Amino acid sequence: MMTLVSGIDIGGTNTEIGIVDKDGNILFTETISTTAFATPEAYVQAIEIILKKGQVKCATEILAIGIGAPSANYFSGCIEHAPNMPWKGIIPLAEMLVQATGKRTVITNDANAAALGEMIFGAAKFVKDFLLVTLGTGLGSGFVVNNEVVYGHDGFAGELGHVIIEEGGRQCGCGRKGCLETYVSATGVVWSAHDAIRSGKTIAGVTSIEKITARMIAEAAEAGDETAKAIIDEIARKLGLALANAVCITSPSHIYLFGGVARSGDTILVPTRKYFNQYLLRNYAGKVSIELSALPENAAVLGAAALAWKEIS
Amino acid sequence: MMTLVSGIDIGGTNTEIGIVDKDGNILFTETISTTAFATPEAYVQAIEIILKKGQVKCATEILAIGIGAPSANYFSGCIEHAPNMPWKGIIPLAEMLVQATGKRTVITNDANAAALGEMIFGAAKFVKDFLLVTLGTGLGSGFVVNNEVVYGHDGFAGELGHVIIEEGGRQCGCGRKGCLETYVSATGVVWSAHDAIRSGKTIAGVTSIEKITARMIAEAAEAGDETAKAIIDEIARKLGLALANAVCITSPSHIYLFGGVARSGDTILVPTRKYFNQYLLRNYAGKVSIELSALPENAAVLGAAALAWKEIS
Repeated sequence: MMTLVSGIDIGGTNTEIGIVDKDGNILFTETISTTAFATPEAYVQAIEIILKKGQVKCATEILAIGIGAPSANYFSGCIEHAPNMPWKGIIPLAEMLVQATGKRTVITNDANAAALGEMIFGAAKFVKDFLLVTLGTGLGSGFVVNNEVVYGHDGFAGELGHVIIEEGGRQCGCGRKGCLETYVSATGVVWSAHDAIRSGKTIAGVTSIEKITARMIAEAAEAGDETAKAIIDEIARKLGLALANAVCITSPSHIYLFGGVARSGDTILVPTRKYFNQYLLRNYAGKVSIELSALPENAAVLGAAALAWKEIS
Repeated sequence: MMTLVSGIDIGGTNTEIGIVDKDGNILFTETISTTAFATPEAYVQAIEIILKKGQVKCATEILAIGIGAPSANYFSGCIEHAPNMPWKGIIPLAEMLVQATGKRTVITNDANAAALGEMIFGAAKFVKDFLLVTLGTGLGSGFVVNNEVVYGHDGFAGELGHVIIEEGGRQCGCGRKGCLETYVSATGVVWSAHDAIRSGKTIAGVTSIEKITARMIAEAAEAGDETAKAIIDEIARKLGLALANAVCITSPSHIYLFGGVARSGDTILVPTRKYFNQYLLRNYAGKVSIELSALPENAAVLGAAALAWKEIS
């Protein structure tokens, strides 16, 4: 009999429920809308039904459930005050799933889950100290020190996106100004493009300021557009600096970039490496590599599954 | 029979050799000049002789030796390219002491040793996740995550003093510009005072620009001098920001300030707390306290002894 776990990736829009084996093969997956349920109870019930169906399809029981979700706390098992989730306050999601399914359930934030995915199924299999950065709408991070995810005393460690990189800079959703993710994220790319166009510049392929996406800017930069190249360059500079500063704290051997913005590949990777090495303290020179994640696009489910595997191993 | 270890604190000028019991009582201590020996071999021999004397005086053998030293690497047991040490290159000090004394010997950098001292003998006895900052000529740091010092993949984690806080800022000894320790350290205080006086300001009690010390500026600030107060305020602001950013990475419950500059007490502590709380991400609000170290002035020997105790426990 195969041994399997479930990995559940909860996003603000969709929830993907997967069943995953020890080698990272996704044997079953189904997606539901996160926002279609009036209560957390109804949402958990829907997950339970899908898990039953999945287990029937895989002809075996799952051993445990791992969940990656925004603002999820590994220690408490709760989603706590997530700004982009339909239910406010503190949702004891792990405990609710234990009650509904009888399965051991663990939860952590999506970036920590991605780091675990990289560690168990991806490029970090033999790496003890690394940092994974998720570049999407925002910027998330998971720090791994000596083979363990850093959770911190309260379960909320790894908020690299909220390191202040520019005092008095862009207004962040967190209420402060100048956080890294207001610059280095899909949102940050679009913000920079708006600023450029408002200051009278043009970007190849951009006809309406309302319709700018990060992908458009990345493509324009790849095609050689100077304004787009300058935008990407400035983002890479800020990311390079923030990563060099983070290395001073945990001294990882590897940094992995993960998610939508990272998938633009060399466009962001090459200048980020350049600035990172410029800003890096000499003690670390030549010891830290920045790579793209080796996980596939639906890696969020793998990350959540990795959390479950780590918990029961 | 008492069980004892030796704690050795190596500084650029002096080396203090102590014998310490499990409760942090220093039963024997002797200081030698770090620079008075032509070779590392002669220096190790001097330490060995003092340790023999100390063991006779304490009427018991030590179990192990712990060493805190600048640029010391826990993994390799070496002092590696320390800028302020008399011997250049890589000195395998732990192994040399093992050969000389037959005792198990471990080494780490001085700030990590101080963090261990705080954990075993000081204010952090029941604290699992904390950060200790040493404020002296430079700025050192030791990060403790889940009861373990963060060494990083290469043994050189915890260089908060070399986080770049001001791009293109003050020239640092590390070759880069704008490192935290060029502002937040005794050296940084003096630099700010020089800048202030060169720009035409006066500081009460300062008659000669060459003779300014950090203590003079702290005392002038305490006495109400506006220029000195502004200098301390700006240093506290930079420290508060750097600490708030560091919390985003490891999420400690406590931050301890240690060393000469920290001993100026409320003068630096109060404004640092104020700015720290202003800069802190809301998720961590009210969860992180900044305190002065609870270790006595000769704590460096205790830190080194704590490293030995941790190793054999």
